[in-house]
Amino acid sequence: MVILMKRTATEKDVAAVAEFLKNKGLGTHISKGQDATIIGVIGDKSCLAQTPLEMLPGVEKAVPIMQSYKLASRAFAPEGRVCHVGEEEIGGKKLALIGGPCAVESEEQIFEAARGVAAAGARFLRGGAYKPRTSPYSFQGLEEKGLPLLRQAADAYGLKVVSEIISENLIESEGQYVDMFQVGARNMQNFRLLRELGRCKIPVLLKRGIASTIDEWLDAAEYIMAGGNYNVVLCERGIRTFETATRNTLDICAVPVVKERSNLPIIVDPSHAAGKAAYIRSLSLAGIAAGADGIIVEVHPDPMNAKSDAAQQIKPDAFCALAEDIRRIAPVLGREA
Amino acid sequence: MVILMKRTATEKDVAAVAEFLKNKGLGTHISKGQDATIIGVIGDKSCLAQTPLEMLPGVEKAVPIMQSYKLASRAFAPEGRVCHVGEEEIGGKKLALIGGPCAVESEEQIFEAARGVAAAGARFLRGGAYKPRTSPYSFQGLEEKGLPLLRQAADAYGLKVVSEIISENLIESEGQYVDMFQVGARNMQNFRLLRELGRCKIPVLLKRGIASTIDEWLDAAEYIMAGGNYNVVLCERGIRTFETATRNTLDICAVPVVKERSNLPIIVDPSHAAGKAAYIRSLSLAGIAAGADGIIVEVHPDPMNAKSDAAQQIKPDAFCALAEDIRRIAPVLGREA
Amino acid sequence: MVILMKRTATEKDVAAVAEFLKNKGLGTHISKGQDATIIGVIGDKSCLAQTPLEMLPGVEKAVPIMQSYKLASRAFAPEGRVCHVGEEEIGGKKLALIGGPCAVESEEQIFEAARGVAAAGARFLRGGAYKPRTSPYSFQGLEEKGLPLLRQAADAYGLKVVSEIISENLIESEGQYVDMFQVGARNMQNFRLLRELGRCKIPVLLKRGIASTIDEWLDAAEYIMAGGNYNVVLCERGIRTFETATRNTLDICAVPVVKERSNLPIIVDPSHAAGKAAYIRSLSLAGIAAGADGIIVEVHPDPMNAKSDAAQQIKPDAFCALAEDIRRIAPVLGREA
Amino acid sequence: MVILMKRTATEKDVAAVAEFLKNKGLGTHISKGQDATIIGVIGDKSCLAQTPLEMLPGVEKAVPIMQSYKLASRAFAPEGRVCHVGEEEIGGKKLALIGGPCAVESEEQIFEAARGVAAAGARFLRGGAYKPRTSPYSFQGLEEKGLPLLRQAADAYGLKVVSEIISENLIESEGQYVDMFQVGARNMQNFRLLRELGRCKIPVLLKRGIASTIDEWLDAAEYIMAGGNYNVVLCERGIRTFETATRNTLDICAVPVVKERSNLPIIVDPSHAAGKAAYIRSLSLAGIAAGADGIIVEVHPDPMNAKSDAAQQIKPDAFCALAEDIRRIAPVLGREA
Repeated sequence: MVILMKRTATEKDVAAVAEFLKNKGLGTHISKGQDATIIGVIGDKSCLAQTPLEMLPGVEKAVPIMQSYKLASRAFAPEGRVCHVGEEEIGGKKLALIGGPCAVESEEQIFEAARGVAAAGARFLRGGAYKPRTSPYSFQGLEEKGLPLLRQAADAYGLKVVSEIISENLIESEGQYVDMFQVGARNMQNFRLLRELGRCKIPVLLKRGIASTIDEWLDAAEYIMAGGNYNVVLCERGIRTFETATRNTLDICAVPVVKERSNLPIIVDPSHAAGKAAYIRSLSLAGIAAGADGIIVEVHPDPMNAKSDAAQQIKPDAFCALAEDIRRIAPVLGREA
Repeated sequence: MVILMKRTATEKDVAAVAEFLKNKGLGTHISKGQDATIIGVIGDKSCLAQTPLEMLPGVEKAVPIMQSYKLASRAFAPEGRVCHVGEEEIGGKKLALIGGPCAVESEEQIFEAARGVAAAGARFLRGGAYKPRTSPYSFQGLEEKGLPLLRQAADAYGLKVVSEIISENLIESEGQYVDMFQVGARNMQNFRLLRELGRCKIPVLLKRGIASTIDEWLDAAEYIMAGGNYNVVLCERGIRTFETATRNTLDICAVPVVKERSNLPIIVDPSHAAGKAAYIRSLSLAGIAAGADGIIVEVHPDPMNAKSDAAQQIKPDAFCALAEDIRRIAPVLGREA
Repeated sequence: MVILMKRTATEKDVAAVAEFLKNKGLGTHISKGQDATIIGVIGDKSCLAQTPLEMLPGVEKAVPIMQSYKLASRAFAPEGRVCHVGEEEIGGKKLALIGGPCAVESEEQIFEAARGVAAAGARFLRGGAYKPRTSPYSFQGLEEKGLPLLRQAADAYGLKVVSEIISENLIESEGQYVDMFQVGARNMQNFRLLRELGRCKIPVLLKRGIASTIDEWLDAAEYIMAGGNYNVVLCERGIRTFETATRNTLDICAVPVVKERSNLPIIVDPSHAAGKAAYIRSLSLAGIAAGADGIIVEVHPDPMNAKSDAAQQIKPDAFCALAEDIRRIAPVLGREA
Repeated sequence: MVILMKRTATEKDVAAVAEFLKNKGLGTHISKGQDATIIGVIGDKSCLAQTPLEMLPGVEKAVPIMQSYKLASRAFAPEGRVCHVGEEEIGGKKLALIGGPCAVESEEQIFEAARGVAAAGARFLRGGAYKPRTSPYSFQGLEEKGLPLLRQAADAYGLKVVSEIISENLIESEGQYVDMFQVGARNMQNFRLLRELGRCKIPVLLKRGIASTIDEWLDAAEYIMAGGNYNVVLCERGIRTFETATRNTLDICAVPVVKERSNLPIIVDPSHAAGKAAYIRSLSLAGIAAGADGIIVEVHPDPMNAKSDAAQQIKPDAFCALAEDIRRIAPVLGREA
């Protein structure tokens, strides 16, 4: 924390700020500059987190210069962390490919999707049972009926299951079917859900909120890790901007930024960012080239008749060709797929 | 729904689209223009909500032109709706003033806040018991211990209680203490919570998500109303933009837009938008001048020592002066306060 | 400027940074904290403006904490500045009302607009002769033929002329017809234009760029003032955000922020922000209530047949009624109109 | 253009709209739907560009469904266009690598940069002579003294010269030294400049404005092409969003969107998007993987002492290694470098 005093601040103002900090148990370093005085705060500044220092006479502004997350920071585990999902890994040398439909719709559909995903060489099957939908009149998923179908399809093809969790009340029941919980963008700051996920042992795929900064996203990961669950993978899926040509704007630079700031693996979701099947291949390859640890793609055997997110789902054969391209560029990144 | 065909689309493409729609039970009107053919879709288009028509050969794009909310729309109740909170109203001629601290911190604090709020002539006391916080290491509220204090303070000064609800699991317990639930920005699309609120009888103050469009906000209101609870008030509290001078950017024009599109009352929250006490008065008066039905302001007897959101809370005397100014401009808007 | 060292930084790293700064003629104050060392930089930091201090070993980040504008800052003229346009003022007790069409289209049109604007009690007539248009196929204005018409219409009703300047090449010729140049949002960072405007004596109305922060806007004002022309008025006209219900999002809080940071007057343009005539009244009153020094509104005698920006222009009688409302709320703000 | 009527619109309202359009020389197709009537407009709608149809009684909204650019559209040249810069090409099979410093600072600096750029196998040297800077107190470039140095350095290593043009007044003089003009983000809507560039024969690299949609960007390209200069290359360099971890947010999906909508080549500028040297490699590879026709990277022999944009410039050896990586992934994209 650094405090910038106004140009018009008096010696007395500066002394009062120092006194205020001293009473909170903090030390100060005072630098008198040409234009203004700067006060560096020394000690455990967490007690100042909510103190409006700008309200003290003579204070221009207080500038926090440290991040609030610790367990999720790169400094905490400089070598980086690998997430273990059963015998599979995300964040190791091998790139993680996750595919599957937006929603589980029927036994036939999910088995066909699983077959295609496995044929592409992917190791993870995604599929939503509980669907958060913008309008109350849209299809809301098969809910508890969808999970066993998803599990059976994955098992039939030797895949791990990734599925969205939308309420802390469902952790126990849904946890019996999935290998990895996915927290959707809308729930990235559902702190009660995050806290409960920190207390369970199942790995978590944490999507970035569409209006969340990278630091807020890492704060959200910190909620899970603070409970003891370090098996967290981040997923960049596009942020909301003024551009309407795509559903969201994939923040591709979040990949190297996360690699620099955090010890957690990060994957990219091209489907929700693009909102359009035609752009999936470009975004997937871009994600891998930027250094992501994998991708999660919506794959549906019959997108034209999908009950949700139809425009952005690709067919199994397109996913297969994409996986092949990823295998070809992986070595340039020092990876394999 | 209107479908724009590509310039290169053939007669056969157009016929195939018409056939596709016919099989869904929909009619078409085909307009052959100079540059391209347009197909207007007739009938209940809800079955197309998730159909990627762009995947049909020759289709350039499909443009939805109707909103997905109905109960929340202006057309559904052209005269507008008044929300009843006990014997108080929001959305009638009288402007609603809601004040109180970010969080209930102690008996003394909340009683002092309530006294100040009542002295300003306001009729509603706000105060958080359960606080969603960005970092897991921040103060999380007094939780279930805060609610009785809030109720007692409000009763002592004849005020209605507004408090945030952060989980469907708390509706029953928290509902015993509050007159109106507040849904925070982070939970605007917590659809399970919205659905349960639709089934209860307590009025709901629905804050806009920081990255939500006005139409998505009205879709969220629709979730509550679809359950039978029409006592909903919208609250504009700032959206996230590139500007960092303020915590968020108050979308003041949301007020007339909501008045045009929806039948629901709308109030303005200057505190969370500004993030700084010095801007509260300007934003409050602007909100009322723009046509809002009231304001909700963070008022704390001792902001310097508040445990959360300290920088943006004002003192009771400032709230009192603000209420006085609002009373003076209200008649220009055809209102009273 | 404050430099935050990495947790892993060594004594030697800190010494090297101090040495580097010393060679640039700067002093340092070093604060060793619990988690990290902070280096405060003392002296004229302008020589560091482009130095990537983060590239020095052990440096986590460099945080600039002073603004780059001086003449435009509140500290430079704490009492605030009034802009003089002939015998009229913007920024004094009297609110400035500016009205007129998007573009000068014909003698009849501009005289009728001027009559309406004067009848409302406004003292300034706006009208574009040179129009920057997004598409090359749109109406580009009457160009040099429009200016004399605008001047004559203004003179006939005793009004001052405000018109957009789009190139430094036009300053001399256009300057013969106008009382105040307007710099449009797209040219806010056309630095050659700004520099030349700094050298002329005509007041400048500087619109905010749609993606410019308030500080960048004040930097742009600084360009003009650095040349000696202090007669600058800022105009908030909406920024670009994700919301599409309005053409842009009026950043109403920019009004109190500018009042705090700068000595320049600020007015609000509701027309370009809203993009729709129906919202003009709400935004105008909100602007005045927030503390703006005036408004600039698009007023056209026949909006249905306007050649540009038709949807957002209001008729003279609506402008007249609006001026009346502004007169009624002005006293609450300590103003008159 | 499609016009959606209000639910409450009468037959008379619909007839009046049809009559209004007929008087403009336009035909209509009227579709009476369950909820509302839709009017499709037939004919040359350019005459409606500025008509506020929403002001006609009963009209809910008018939805434009065609883009305003033609020459820049994919439909106009479905096979795509290659830009010729002397004997070099951008947009062909070979990827274009452009490197060089933010600004020309001295003979020694630009020659050393050129040597490094050529050594990497790049064919284009960039360097700014006229620098648009946010603050009037920052280094503004060597201006006319910089151009001959840039030309000589490029010639010494057989490179083409790319340099920014900031005013239509400089086209003739600067045109004697450069092979390709660069239009910076701030000038993307400087329509006078664009128009004059359309009249000259020198190829143009058109950067996207930080708040411009892809369609507005293509409209800007249309300005140049409408004058007869088809040698235009687009450059994605990041847009402004709420995220502050990077200088801007690289809109990587703009690459496939532009490929779909336009016939123009597109390259990516990782330097301005990232604002930090450490992220350049990731963004460059991502750009190529997404399908871009090349990259433009800031390369400086001594970034620590650069006079502008220092934090985001990389050294020649890093550029060389990057070029090598690009060569390795190019075949996966069907390209070479």
